[in-house]
Amino acid sequence: MDVKNILEQVKNGTLSTDEAMLQLKAQPFEDLGYAKIDHHRAIRQGAGEVIYGAGKTAEQIIGISRRLIDGGANNVLITRLDADKAEILCKKMDATYDPVSKIAIAAPQDQPHVGNIVVATGGTSDMPVAEEAALTAETLGSHVVRLYDVGVAGLHRLLSHLDQLQSARVVVAIAGREGALASVLGGLVDCPVIAVPTSVGYGASFGGVSALLSMLNSCSSGVSVVNIDNGFGAGYLANIINQMESIAE
Amino acid sequence: MDVKNILEQVKNGTLSTDEAMLQLKAQPFEDLGYAKIDHHRAIRQGAGEVIYGAGKTAEQIIGISRRLIDGGANNVLITRLDADKAEILCKKMDATYDPVSKIAIAAPQDQPHVGNIVVATGGTSDMPVAEEAALTAETLGSHVVRLYDVGVAGLHRLLSHLDQLQSARVVVAIAGREGALASVLGGLVDCPVIAVPTSVGYGASFGGVSALLSMLNSCSSGVSVVNIDNGFGAGYLANIINQMESIAE
Amino acid sequence: MDVKNILEQVKNGTLSTDEAMLQLKAQPFEDLGYAKIDHHRAIRQGAGEVIYGAGKTAEQIIGISRRLIDGGANNVLITRLDADKAEILCKKMDATYDPVSKIAIAAPQDQPHVGNIVVATGGTSDMPVAEEAALTAETLGSHVVRLYDVGVAGLHRLLSHLDQLQSARVVVAIAGREGALASVLGGLVDCPVIAVPTSVGYGASFGGVSALLSMLNSCSSGVSVVNIDNGFGAGYLANIINQMESIAE
Amino acid sequence: MDVKNILEQVKNGTLSTDEAMLQLKAQPFEDLGYAKIDHHRAIRQGAGEVIYGAGKTAEQIIGISRRLIDGGANNVLITRLDADKAEILCKKMDATYDPVSKIAIAAPQDQPHVGNIVVATGGTSDMPVAEEAALTAETLGSHVVRLYDVGVAGLHRLLSHLDQLQSARVVVAIAGREGALASVLGGLVDCPVIAVPTSVGYGASFGGVSALLSMLNSCSSGVSVVNIDNGFGAGYLANIINQMESIAE
Amino acid sequence: MDVKNILEQVKNGTLSTDEAMLQLKAQPFEDLGYAKIDHHRAIRQGAGEVIYGAGKTAEQIIGISRRLIDGGANNVLITRLDADKAEILCKKMDATYDPVSKIAIAAPQDQPHVGNIVVATGGTSDMPVAEEAALTAETLGSHVVRLYDVGVAGLHRLLSHLDQLQSARVVVAIAGREGALASVLGGLVDCPVIAVPTSVGYGASFGGVSALLSMLNSCSSGVSVVNIDNGFGAGYLANIINQMESIAE
Amino acid sequence: MDVKNILEQVKNGTLSTDEAMLQLKAQPFEDLGYAKIDHHRAIRQGAGEVIYGAGKTAEQIIGISRRLIDGGANNVLITRLDADKAEILCKKMDATYDPVSKIAIAAPQDQPHVGNIVVATGGTSDMPVAEEAALTAETLGSHVVRLYDVGVAGLHRLLSHLDQLQSARVVVAIAGREGALASVLGGLVDCPVIAVPTSVGYGASFGGVSALLSMLNSCSSGVSVVNIDNGFGAGYLANIINQMESIAE
Amino acid sequence: MDVKNILEQVKNGTLSTDEAMLQLKAQPFEDLGYAKIDHHRAIRQGAGEVIYGAGKTAEQIIGISRRLIDGGANNVLITRLDADKAEILCKKMDATYDPVSKIAIAAPQDQPHVGNIVVATGGTSDMPVAEEAALTAETLGSHVVRLYDVGVAGLHRLLSHLDQLQSARVVVAIAGREGALASVLGGLVDCPVIAVPTSVGYGASFGGVSALLSMLNSCSSGVSVVNIDNGFGAGYLANIINQMESIAE
Amino acid sequence: MDVKNILEQVKNGTLSTDEAMLQLKAQPFEDLGYAKIDHHRAIRQGAGEVIYGAGKTAEQIIGISRRLIDGGANNVLITRLDADKAEILCKKMDATYDPVSKIAIAAPQDQPHVGNIVVATGGTSDMPVAEEAALTAETLGSHVVRLYDVGVAGLHRLLSHLDQLQSARVVVAIAGREGALASVLGGLVDCPVIAVPTSVGYGASFGGVSALLSMLNSCSSGVSVVNIDNGFGAGYLANIINQMESIAE
Repeated sequence: MDVKNILEQVKNGTLSTDEAMLQLKAQPFEDLGYAKIDHHRAIRQGAGEVIYGAGKTAEQIIGISRRLIDGGANNVLITRLDADKAEILCKKMDATYDPVSKIAIAAPQDQPHVGNIVVATGGTSDMPVAEEAALTAETLGSHVVRLYDVGVAGLHRLLSHLDQLQSARVVVAIAGREGALASVLGGLVDCPVIAVPTSVGYGASFGGVSALLSMLNSCSSGVSVVNIDNGFGAGYLANIINQMESIAE
Repeated sequence: MDVKNILEQVKNGTLSTDEAMLQLKAQPFEDLGYAKIDHHRAIRQGAGEVIYGAGKTAEQIIGISRRLIDGGANNVLITRLDADKAEILCKKMDATYDPVSKIAIAAPQDQPHVGNIVVATGGTSDMPVAEEAALTAETLGSHVVRLYDVGVAGLHRLLSHLDQLQSARVVVAIAGREGALASVLGGLVDCPVIAVPTSVGYGASFGGVSALLSMLNSCSSGVSVVNIDNGFGAGYLANIINQMESIAE
Repeated sequence: MDVKNILEQVKNGTLSTDEAMLQLKAQPFEDLGYAKIDHHRAIRQGAGEVIYGAGKTAEQIIGISRRLIDGGANNVLITRLDADKAEILCKKMDATYDPVSKIAIAAPQDQPHVGNIVVATGGTSDMPVAEEAALTAETLGSHVVRLYDVGVAGLHRLLSHLDQLQSARVVVAIAGREGALASVLGGLVDCPVIAVPTSVGYGASFGGVSALLSMLNSCSSGVSVVNIDNGFGAGYLANIINQMESIAE
Repeated sequence: MDVKNILEQVKNGTLSTDEAMLQLKAQPFEDLGYAKIDHHRAIRQGAGEVIYGAGKTAEQIIGISRRLIDGGANNVLITRLDADKAEILCKKMDATYDPVSKIAIAAPQDQPHVGNIVVATGGTSDMPVAEEAALTAETLGSHVVRLYDVGVAGLHRLLSHLDQLQSARVVVAIAGREGALASVLGGLVDCPVIAVPTSVGYGASFGGVSALLSMLNSCSSGVSVVNIDNGFGAGYLANIINQMESIAE
Repeated sequence: MDVKNILEQVKNGTLSTDEAMLQLKAQPFEDLGYAKIDHHRAIRQGAGEVIYGAGKTAEQIIGISRRLIDGGANNVLITRLDADKAEILCKKMDATYDPVSKIAIAAPQDQPHVGNIVVATGGTSDMPVAEEAALTAETLGSHVVRLYDVGVAGLHRLLSHLDQLQSARVVVAIAGREGALASVLGGLVDCPVIAVPTSVGYGASFGGVSALLSMLNSCSSGVSVVNIDNGFGAGYLANIINQMESIAE
Repeated sequence: MDVKNILEQVKNGTLSTDEAMLQLKAQPFEDLGYAKIDHHRAIRQGAGEVIYGAGKTAEQIIGISRRLIDGGANNVLITRLDADKAEILCKKMDATYDPVSKIAIAAPQDQPHVGNIVVATGGTSDMPVAEEAALTAETLGSHVVRLYDVGVAGLHRLLSHLDQLQSARVVVAIAGREGALASVLGGLVDCPVIAVPTSVGYGASFGGVSALLSMLNSCSSGVSVVNIDNGFGAGYLANIINQMESIAE
Repeated sequence: MDVKNILEQVKNGTLSTDEAMLQLKAQPFEDLGYAKIDHHRAIRQGAGEVIYGAGKTAEQIIGISRRLIDGGANNVLITRLDADKAEILCKKMDATYDPVSKIAIAAPQDQPHVGNIVVATGGTSDMPVAEEAALTAETLGSHVVRLYDVGVAGLHRLLSHLDQLQSARVVVAIAGREGALASVLGGLVDCPVIAVPTSVGYGASFGGVSALLSMLNSCSSGVSVVNIDNGFGAGYLANIINQMESIAE
Repeated sequence: MDVKNILEQVKNGTLSTDEAMLQLKAQPFEDLGYAKIDHHRAIRQGAGEVIYGAGKTAEQIIGISRRLIDGGANNVLITRLDADKAEILCKKMDATYDPVSKIAIAAPQDQPHVGNIVVATGGTSDMPVAEEAALTAETLGSHVVRLYDVGVAGLHRLLSHLDQLQSARVVVAIAGREGALASVLGGLVDCPVIAVPTSVGYGASFGGVSALLSMLNSCSSGVSVVNIDNGFGAGYLANIINQMESIAE
């Protein structure tokens, strides 16, 4: 029963004003605009719903997944999922699991991948974060090109992929240690660059702080940064930007 | 003379292979793809070229502006410009100056503003950063809506602008102190949120570090962060995202 | 024998001045006001005595508990108690244990719970800290309402509990990551808000530092902060405030 | 026109359901509970409204003050006000100014001061912060006892005021350098202790960080902390706690 | 052969000047004052030689101990020794081991303990560090009084030991968390206070940093600080000061 | 009237027990041991009383100085005194001022300087801190030897003073930048070394933090540390240690 | 086929300009200077190729090693290799392994060691880092002298090796804790000093940060610093400097 | 009189052994090897002696310069010299001053510049540090090539100078903000790269810390780092490496 309904009933005398007051208070988000978000999310459900797996039991994850799928969802994305919980999940329901990114997808289903996101990493050790970003974006419907191990210490590796980089709609730059990749990429492309510092490194890399500061101070325009190791956040944001539509005339 | 040309001349015998070698080396960026960036920037010049004013003399700034304008540019954006240098600038050439954002625009010219960027701030003290973001995006051709002083301590101020927020293509969330605005906005909208921590605050705000960490750890998806007080960076990135076109069919 | 007594005996000549000197020195806290604290605590013993369990052996904890109970205490609160020590405790004496908060209560006994404390968390992972706060306050005699997983990324979850929040005498705001919950709650209620940063998060959350700074810089009035993960401290303080009496006329 | 009114009119047919929808959206905070906060504040206005003076011009401050006073307020608290702005303020309207705390009070008026707040400092250099706390609490209607320069290096100074401390309803402990005062006070009293680290000190005091960490790690129960130098925040919170009423039967 | 000897031989013609040059270079520390330190230490050997146990194998420790004992040493102090290495040590040679301080003493022998060092701790968890300090000082010949668990949250515990504190020649103040003990002790005694921050605590205690800063910023005169958890350093320094002799007339 | 007196009067009946109670409370520090400190300080007054000059007006300083001098003190040490306040001081009363250390001495008077403290610095820029230490110790009655600019980058400078160093009773090691002087000195002498990090340096010296950490981690035994730039603290402590008497037989 | 070749063929008509365009793009690094680096490395392959072992499987390492050896390399350096992976490696191919430095060398082969690098450490615990540096430099063809455990607390240990130090072409100074070794060495030699902070230490050494800051602030000229525990980096750089040739006339 | 002399005299009987002992002690550095450093420096004096100008008066600097020049030196390098002191210097003696690098050269004299050092900067604001490095190396006799404003955001600027970079004997990489230049340069050249972080930047660049960490974590081999803004240190070290001679056969 929405606000319009409530008002109609008040008008018709089938609802007292006091009871109307109560109902308006009880469900303010469903009808007064706040639920818009949820509603919007519901519409998108076919393209991917997200469950943060860390700190949840396998049973909880299965429960939530089932509820979402019963509600019509598929390609339910489950992030930060340990291998042992993933094993239980995959036994009990239709799901796939990628041990590198620690991402599982429940009710996986073929879907088109549109647009063009490049996920680039400085080294091979950044791969878990990169795959989290890539799989997130793919599950949400984006096309992803992976350019791994193109760190700035060997610039030629990066430059040999210029064409791919310059045809991207969004670039996700993932690097640990000194995180210089984001600045170099930011200087090579015109599209938005989402930088992800990783905790890869040792000593004065301070668990990703060095890369984080480096990326925040990037001298290239068009670069923004997400949290250390936050591949999911980068992939999620990259997908939103990638799927943006033209300004309506 | 581009690569194709050089090769043609070699073929025709009008250029020796040695001289061709030399020319290929001399202008590798012009022809082999690296210059693509510059070329692209050149194309865009009519819509805004950027000069970082801090650490340059008024004379240098005027010099660069004139060269750009002679090259066809207008609406040349000059950021971080002190009032005294701005005075000289405005005397010597056609330019406007905004003392709040410390932005000057040389050869200002009317232009359409398209799309929809919302620039929101937690408090009135965040205005210099916010205006830097807003004017940058506007000068680059974007339409900007300002929502200032909508900090989370008075949530109703923010919620009363829900419609404006939810119709934005990009939101720039600018806040100092605890920087909670980015998370709250991230939860209210579905479009990309660019968070700008400001150095506003005292004590344990550590010149913007508190807001910066807060924004990096945002529990809302779709939020990315730029450097402390980097209004220009946010406005520049917001404009790129705002003006993105649909994925070509 | 208190000061008055000593003086009376000196007056009566049953105590020499030298011996009186000695006695005054030997027990300065019992009689000159310093012991007031201990005395006061003794009076409250029926409502809860506290043992910090970490770093004590099961035997030590049982010993202290028994001494307190023999002295008339019940509902003895034992915090930060590992499950294995708890098992020994519960076998050897009348005690209950809550594995989430790691709190045990020795000589548990029914008691009234008065007033109204709301314990709110940003996410489900903050529950161990929240339960430590809630159980502490309950064991000390306060009534506690739990609002878990009402983080600011989904503001509607929080707003749907406005009535409960606004009828609280004290609110305990518990959050990790960006800790924005404290500011938002501080803007919604008029009562004191005790903010507890938690070490929940990853990357640049730095084990709770991000949430800590965020809460210290809260732009809402009426907010104060305790140590990272210090659920006990928040619950203890909330109980004191909750049980405050009116200013005597 | 409130929700009840709107509903009544709908019932009576004097308002269409569509127009009712619009009105409900237009003023959600006035009628659906969100405005409760503002309303509540309005009720309290006679006892003190607060303006944060830093970053506002004298004219802005005078303007806001006048509007509040016109609305019935008196004892309008203006914090962090520079001496030169204060001079203008005091010339143009009825106001008093205290140069130590940098607090001005517009439309000052005698009022009763109830309860008992002790504001204690470690040294005389902490006085500006202490006076900000004390004047804030006094302006909001609390009775304040000042105990300045009672730092722990000379414990006897503190102990000679035990009676005053132990009869307080709230203690505000203000100290720079090592901030040990909060812990010692926390061990001496049973009421809430609000600790305020100050930026007083040099070298490894890091502008108040040393005192801040010290206070957050206090081994005494009942201590919570506000931002460095945040005398206003402490005074505001102390007043709320001081004026709490007993739990209703 | 010392410098004097070499010179005598040169004088006597039994040594050429060139060979004398060579010898002077070969042993500069034995004869020109640099070895004074070693010599001095050799003299003291009967009263305690120190081996840092961490990072050495049981065999290495036994080897070094035997060499020292063969050289006339007894009461050889071995610090930071794991229990399992200690077991091997005690089996293979005459040695005692204290598991709390992780200190072993090889070739233990009765000796007088002179002077008066008070080792005080804030809590019982500081005991391992305190015992390292106490045993170090005792093994080097000092008399030590232990005052454990006299933290400032319960000031009466500390004040009841005033006589013992004020008769000390050196006080070692050991505390974690907020480390306020050092300041309070510094205000109560006139002798040197050596402060040892410990890594005891959680959250914003940052592994002892909070206590360290607190102690460095002590508002009491006569306080100096050693590294976090450095009980050995404090005990060693306390012993030197304790055993100082009067200024010779 | 002391405790003994009070008790005698009670015994004699010239004082009622109630009034005795009152008097005991009124002056607990004078008679029950707490005042011991003050008393002790009073005894020492002839040898130097200390006023922290920063944050006090010239008038306040003169007032305190006069009261101390009237009470019998001379050589009153005033630290951290700006040149302009010093000028007023020296005009209005008998006082000397040293602009390097910013120390003034009121009622200066010749006195013997006993024992042997070496104050060594890494560079000439450390002189203000060094002079603060040296003058403090001298004013309190110690003999001081200054070894300035003997930093470890030119080890020969240091080694050429070995005799002076090794005959010291206390060494104060003052250095900025990398603070290595403390460790090197600690290895060369057997007496206590008090290390003072200074804020001298640039870049990653972080206002003295680099030297502070260096000194805290000194691999030499017998080294303890005071706050950054705390020359007074080092001089004060050095004097106490220097003037220690032998253990009484 | 290099650029010259391509151009010749274009000239000869055996290659179309379009295909030439394609080929120029396909291999820009081989011929246009960027590949110079790789080429240079290829030339050096006989003297040592480097594989970073951490985060690679034994199989991957064996695979890469074989490919390099097949390409003519020997003395392939594998750093940060765990013992268990090393065991597999040594079983499956011709390789040696050093468990201290965790370095393996595949296809080890005798080679001359030229020049003179001194690797000095402050303590024995710095040995793993020191051996990583030493073995790296040796494998790349440098002669290395090891001076271990010559920390500044016992300066005579260091000074007794003056001749060796002063005849070095490069010195690698490796130390944890306060890292003073670098400054002292920098003052004793005229050649470049490469400082390596190690994570050896406890408490305020913060995993090598103390040593790192110390070394960066070295008051000695000629000192530069690499990352904490980065023995490989120091050895690699030392080798380059050691093998530098004179400036050509 | 050197050691040999002393010994000869002892041999000849013109010096007693006791007096010889005394003389040996008095000048240990002149003759026993420690003075080697000084001697060496003396030999080099013609090529440049260094005075650190900050914190010295113009008179002191002139005095030291004159003494050095009287001793035969020319091209005396004076760093960190304020313009006003420089004016006095240049008036009173033969000297030149460069206001950008704040370097003065006393007794300037033509000299050959040998070898090849490239000094590269990320931006024009890094010029003061770069010029300090360049002028230092030049004054010490090295040939320097300046490549300014070749930051990684515009990679083509850097790549167009590949030839110059790859023919360098040493590269000095100077950059603020994210400091990525060092890594990119490290990957492009085979010679040693000395990285200098600058304090250029704002917000999270933290006065050069971001660039410092970036450079320490460089993924390129052959890179070492000096202190923030330490152009002199880099130039000095670059000169030593540049002027290294081949390993003697």
